[in-house]
Amino acid sequence: MSKRKISIFGSTGSIGVNTLDVLSQASQQDQYEILALTGAGNIERLAKQARAAGARMAVTADETRYGELKDALAGTGIAVAAGPSGLLEAADLEADWVMAAIVGTAGLAPTLRAASRGADIALANKECLVSAGSLFVEAIRTAGGRLLPVDSEHSAIFQCLEQQNRAALERIVLTASGGPFRTWSREEMANVTADIARVHPNWSMGLKISIGSATMFNKALEIIEAKHLFDVEPDQIEVVVHPQSIIHSMVGYRDGSVIAQLGAPDMRTAIGYALTYPVRPDLNVERLDFARLARLDFEAPDEERFPALRLARLALARGGLQGAILNAAEETSFHAFVDGRIGFLDMAVVTEQTMDAMVDWSAATDIEAVFAADAEARRIAAQTIASTKRR
Amino acid sequence: MSKRKISIFGSTGSIGVNTLDVLSQASQQDQYEILALTGAGNIERLAKQARAAGARMAVTADETRYGELKDALAGTGIAVAAGPSGLLEAADLEADWVMAAIVGTAGLAPTLRAASRGADIALANKECLVSAGSLFVEAIRTAGGRLLPVDSEHSAIFQCLEQQNRAALERIVLTASGGPFRTWSREEMANVTADIARVHPNWSMGLKISIGSATMFNKALEIIEAKHLFDVEPDQIEVVVHPQSIIHSMVGYRDGSVIAQLGAPDMRTAIGYALTYPVRPDLNVERLDFARLARLDFEAPDEERFPALRLARLALARGGLQGAILNAAEETSFHAFVDGRIGFLDMAVVTEQTMDAMVDWSAATDIEAVFAADAEARRIAAQTIASTKRR
Repeated sequence: MSKRKISIFGSTGSIGVNTLDVLSQASQQDQYEILALTGAGNIERLAKQARAAGARMAVTADETRYGELKDALAGTGIAVAAGPSGLLEAADLEADWVMAAIVGTAGLAPTLRAASRGADIALANKECLVSAGSLFVEAIRTAGGRLLPVDSEHSAIFQCLEQQNRAALERIVLTASGGPFRTWSREEMANVTADIARVHPNWSMGLKISIGSATMFNKALEIIEAKHLFDVEPDQIEVVVHPQSIIHSMVGYRDGSVIAQLGAPDMRTAIGYALTYPVRPDLNVERLDFARLARLDFEAPDEERFPALRLARLALARGGLQGAILNAAEETSFHAFVDGRIGFLDMAVVTEQTMDAMVDWSAATDIEAVFAADAEARRIAAQTIASTKRR
Repeated sequence: MSKRKISIFGSTGSIGVNTLDVLSQASQQDQYEILALTGAGNIERLAKQARAAGARMAVTADETRYGELKDALAGTGIAVAAGPSGLLEAADLEADWVMAAIVGTAGLAPTLRAASRGADIALANKECLVSAGSLFVEAIRTAGGRLLPVDSEHSAIFQCLEQQNRAALERIVLTASGGPFRTWSREEMANVTADIARVHPNWSMGLKISIGSATMFNKALEIIEAKHLFDVEPDQIEVVVHPQSIIHSMVGYRDGSVIAQLGAPDMRTAIGYALTYPVRPDLNVERLDFARLARLDFEAPDEERFPALRLARLALARGGLQGAILNAAEETSFHAFVDGRIGFLDMAVVTEQTMDAMVDWSAATDIEAVFAADAEARRIAAQTIASTKRR
């Protein structure tokens, strides 16, 4: 049997590192062959990973680091490339399974390229669905690959979806930790700074994701992703706050049953499921001990304090490029918040104003239209931020 | 397409009544044809059900009520039979799907007969697996029918079992309400009377099941049933106390994932799943509202206060007819407790002493051996009870 060919886009980040760990744990690991590994600024780690995995190619997204990577891999026979064109080169290799974990819009083009080639896409990049959902899903469908979610919530839903019961699917219940300000008033939230917001209660994650958890913009993006991933109506997607993050998400059926996926907060389970689907791998991750968990809590999300959820539903109702616009405006306002130029609550205000300003941008017919909407949304958001008085 | 032929053994009890309700709700209800309905003493309800369903045959398990049932169905063309032979006659009809909901050892022979004929068996009777597990599973396997659990816990496990991941199954997590004395001390439990014990916190159910919930003997029987239903090792079956009874049970896999089935406490979901498996029916049952649930709790069961769980594991370790003996001894001691002849804690003591006295009874080769063990266990248990000083 020929080895399964794997590429990892974004191998030096936490998802990439965990993917390599899962590959090393998967019992039939000798069935895997690594084609391309890509990273950005962490050249040392990328080179080390490429050597250890015997990769065919290593790519840094940062063109200015090409020489450094080339030197680090001198004499190994591993091909080296850099920049957007290097990423596309990696996407053109004949991988059967691609982990798409490049953060941001930079991940769009190479992932779309690999999807269009028919590869199975393990999707950790949010923009592919949030900004270019219809295009991306259509590319996957046309080329015949599989779309395998890696986000813990979407993986949970994917795990709870019964193929023979798609017609009986009634609702998707996305769980949300509620972030660090779950119990704070709007007045308290108005005074939050980036340093306070970065402490997420359950997961250790980057600043962007921590703030996204605090505003619940992460969950807003996940609502949009779920719509494209699972082809459901927006009103079939329910969000419930579950502070312990043990139930990763649920699916409700028309017989009253709710099927839930639970686990310790360890992304390797979702990565493993995407890797060996529909079979589950053996993984050395923590097992749940229910008596020790003791309790799981639930509460309704407050869209007054967390307007991001309302904005996600607005974007879905409007359609077109509103997902891309929401995402770009939110990223722009996130940077302004971290720099202290706007307040915590302003992020949603700026995002909504940007969405409103671009309501007549119709659906993307190609990836260039997505990039154009993204750029324009960033420009409008920046303008809005400049005219915003810090509250 | 020919109609699916259905028989309901025990149609006048709560499971039978709910089965008829599910049949009336199932959207393609005209695909069903009722062959036999059986009951015991509630002749009026049985006759009414048989008329409404246009059944081919109605059977009362109570031979002395034959004339009464015959009169009630005079002129309908519905065949009438009674007693054990009448139940076997019903089992011989060519039903494709049989709801086996006759309570107690009386359910054994007709269910085994229908199973041996190749019918799909929706199993609500406990004795088929607890007392005659190996025989019964073998009969189903040989005849080629399907065994479809109806108990909410086993249905949950069945719903969470992924066929392609049987090899990845690591553990079954049976949830238990913990009963009304979950938080009581042994000393407090020693003084419990039947009137106190019959109040179950979540489900409205008969006295036998209420007391079984209070002693956790129900859960003990479910452990034994799970072993036979899902072909797992006893140490793969975990029990966790979950007072709200919302998570009906769970399955843990070797990738760290736990899949759970949740629902309102309504047996129609489990009945419906058994009816239309592997597809889910549309059912008008209560939907879970997680924000309203607010919390789910878990704790380890205390085998000191609830020795029934330990006895189930002892029965599985010993094998042979220990399941039948445990069940018969427990039933006998239950009646003695209700009559005030022994105390609450004595039920487990009498059961264990009976199991010990019959430890050399080897595995049943036929149903007669099960009946013999059942009778002998009741005799020994009665003797033990007679010599027990009420504590």
